[in-house]
Amino acid sequence: MLENMPDDVSAKLRDAVGQAIGQLHGIYILAQNEVGLVLVDMHAAHERILYERLKRRLDEGGLKPQPLLVPVTLRVGQETADLVEEQAVFLRAIGLDVVRRGPAEVGLVGVPAELLDSDVESLLRDVLGDLAVGESGEATGNRVRDRIEHILGNMGCKAAIKAGRRLQLAEMNALLRDMEGTPRAGHCNHGRPSWVQVDVAALDRMFMRGQ
Amino acid sequence: MLENMPDDVSAKLRDAVGQAIGQLHGIYILAQNEVGLVLVDMHAAHERILYERLKRRLDEGGLKPQPLLVPVTLRVGQETADLVEEQAVFLRAIGLDVVRRGPAEVGLVGVPAELLDSDVESLLRDVLGDLAVGESGEATGNRVRDRIEHILGNMGCKAAIKAGRRLQLAEMNALLRDMEGTPRAGHCNHGRPSWVQVDVAALDRMFMRGQ
Repeated sequence: MLENMPDDVSAKLRDAVGQAIGQLHGIYILAQNEVGLVLVDMHAAHERILYERLKRRLDEGGLKPQPLLVPVTLRVGQETADLVEEQAVFLRAIGLDVVRRGPAEVGLVGVPAELLDSDVESLLRDVLGDLAVGESGEATGNRVRDRIEHILGNMGCKAAIKAGRRLQLAEMNALLRDMEGTPRAGHCNHGRPSWVQVDVAALDRMFMRGQ
Repeated sequence: MLENMPDDVSAKLRDAVGQAIGQLHGIYILAQNEVGLVLVDMHAAHERILYERLKRRLDEGGLKPQPLLVPVTLRVGQETADLVEEQAVFLRAIGLDVVRRGPAEVGLVGVPAELLDSDVESLLRDVLGDLAVGESGEATGNRVRDRIEHILGNMGCKAAIKAGRRLQLAEMNALLRDMEGTPRAGHCNHGRPSWVQVDVAALDRMFMRGQ
């Protein structure tokens, strides 16, 4: 009765995740399309949308940092502050404008426009954690790209709306429309399904309607 | 994952069908309770509510007709007009105040308060149809009661909200509260389920949340 939609689903009807009805338990968006009920995991869907948007911007000429209205200063370990200096070029490549402010202090000055609304401090801490455990030594073409995509994926996850966030109907519908325009929108970046379709015909059987 | 609730379900949590979120395809009410998502077949639920209310009123001293603001005149066959005269007492027992107006004409003057909002003309035509096919001859205690209950059941079904009726959130919540106070609310009078519970834990497994 509940069906996960494959990513390459092509039928026009199923492609449209419909109009939002409301939110369930602060986790799921309930929507109605022509087929029936749609359940959307709002975090998983938003994660995919952000990740694909970041990758597209990267391909279209790089992720340009947008200046933060209020730059953030972070106290970090000295090794992490060293890392920020060493990896300044890589960090800029993924849209993060970070500078060393002192022996154990760094400043975050800009992030990609897509991430301006998120908790940028915790985002930077995660990226620096990813970088610290990353392999050292030369990285050639594909390896760099893989590493960037891995980090962009984590940035998308970090910046995506969390469970418990109350959305207005207009925000829910904006998310649904974004999903429809996003490649691989059927699953989040970690492979979890982002939406599930429940056919009205299946509900009708469950409720023995028309019998 | 989808569970029909037995009629005697007693756990407090599951007893509450929760707060309405919205309507799906003009047929189902979507609601949220502590367990998760609740789907309600609004016609089946309303049918049960009306039927149990009519039976309770019958037990509490009879179904008194409430006068219609605008009495309805129906053209019927002469046999049906005869039937209305013959069965006037029975009709009053089920709260229908019907009089003969001519050789092939009857007037509906009052119906039970519960049914004032429904399509009373079509309701009366159905009841007269039920009566016409009913067994004749003496009817003793239980048979009369069975017959009355059968007709009340059909009246509840006829008067219950139909698919496609757009409800406001307040109306949906009023229906949910009525369900909670109604015996056998888990099924309509014809045995169809009136609501189904979907646990958030089951949804979380479906969406691989927390893995």
